[in-house]
Amino acid sequence: MATARPSGRPRDPDVDRKLAEAAVALFGERGWSSFTIEAVCRRAGVGKASAYLRWSDKTELLAEALTTRLGEISDVDTGSVRGDLVQLVLQLTDLYGGEHGRAALRLAMEAESAPGLAERCVEMVRAQIRAARAIVHRGIRRGELPEATSVTYLLDALCGGAMNHALTTRLVPPEVRASAPPAAEFAERFVDFVLTSMLTRQHTA
Amino acid sequence: MATARPSGRPRDPDVDRKLAEAAVALFGERGWSSFTIEAVCRRAGVGKASAYLRWSDKTELLAEALTTRLGEISDVDTGSVRGDLVQLVLQLTDLYGGEHGRAALRLAMEAESAPGLAERCVEMVRAQIRAARAIVHRGIRRGELPEATSVTYLLDALCGGAMNHALTTRLVPPEVRASAPPAAEFAERFVDFVLTSMLTRQHTA
Repeated sequence: MATARPSGRPRDPDVDRKLAEAAVALFGERGWSSFTIEAVCRRAGVGKASAYLRWSDKTELLAEALTTRLGEISDVDTGSVRGDLVQLVLQLTDLYGGEHGRAALRLAMEAESAPGLAERCVEMVRAQIRAARAIVHRGIRRGELPEATSVTYLLDALCGGAMNHALTTRLVPPEVRASAPPAAEFAERFVDFVLTSMLTRQHTA
Repeated sequence: MATARPSGRPRDPDVDRKLAEAAVALFGERGWSSFTIEAVCRRAGVGKASAYLRWSDKTELLAEALTTRLGEISDVDTGSVRGDLVQLVLQLTDLYGGEHGRAALRLAMEAESAPGLAERCVEMVRAQIRAARAIVHRGIRRGELPEATSVTYLLDALCGGAMNHALTTRLVPPEVRASAPPAAEFAERFVDFVLTSMLTRQHTA
């Protein structure tokens, strides 16, 4: 989609940053159904004209803000599959539990609301799949994982687990759920849990 | 919270059902920030007076609707820990992926918006914890699981995995994610994945 920006006129990075911050925060708190360019400008303390010079519609504004503020999941090679997966889970708990966590969760849930958002969401999942796939393939090459390890189920367990951890830590009172360990400790313990067999004897299929 | 219902006047179950269905659908689609008693009545085709006879505010209306329509996660004793966990995952994919899945995901994310919703969300998580705890304890008694098995991480992996599966199946185009198997097949394969070790040799801690 082309933006309605007069050629030759440079964008002010400070205004860009304020608008992106306000867009991500507003979307996280109230969701797509309450998202308007006017509300973003009010929150950012920026005149509406500045926003309309940059974006012709609110989907573009939000998609660009999410892209610049949420960051990307990337693959980190630590030398062992356990270390790599701990880094992946740390990035995921940071994404869902951090400052912009509500916006990331909203995006996962409300992406259907607008085509520009769906694309951004697919990009987020694609980055997770790329990182997980690279980790699994290295683990197989190093002989740490069986050849047939499923990237899909590994992602369901790890991404889902990180999301569930972020959601319940945010919502559920400590007397209902065991108190949450720091992010680094959660990542290590949870990866060990997923990697290490729990069955003491083989189940009969 | 007391409802403003005249004593001696029976509630019409058909009107109750229509209002509850409309409330859950509307909340799932547009979230708490767009949720009003008026909008629920419009969608249900029911006069506003009927709703105001039953509920004094919109939080009560939604909390009651979610309680009656979303159902509860329950513990099913199949005789093996694998069978029990497959039943748990099936209930979870049904909760998040089924007809009311969007409302369940919204509830997990927007529970902070209102105290009555937070309570309902805690109740949902509490039922999941109760079911998982019963399954783990039976598995330990039968000698299938080690004594120290963590209910918390098991829940993160299984509930999170079911949520992630439901979200990505809904959102992500098939060329990005491997095509989704039927719910029963996903539940069996995913539980086997979580229960069975993937490491071909012990990692060095």
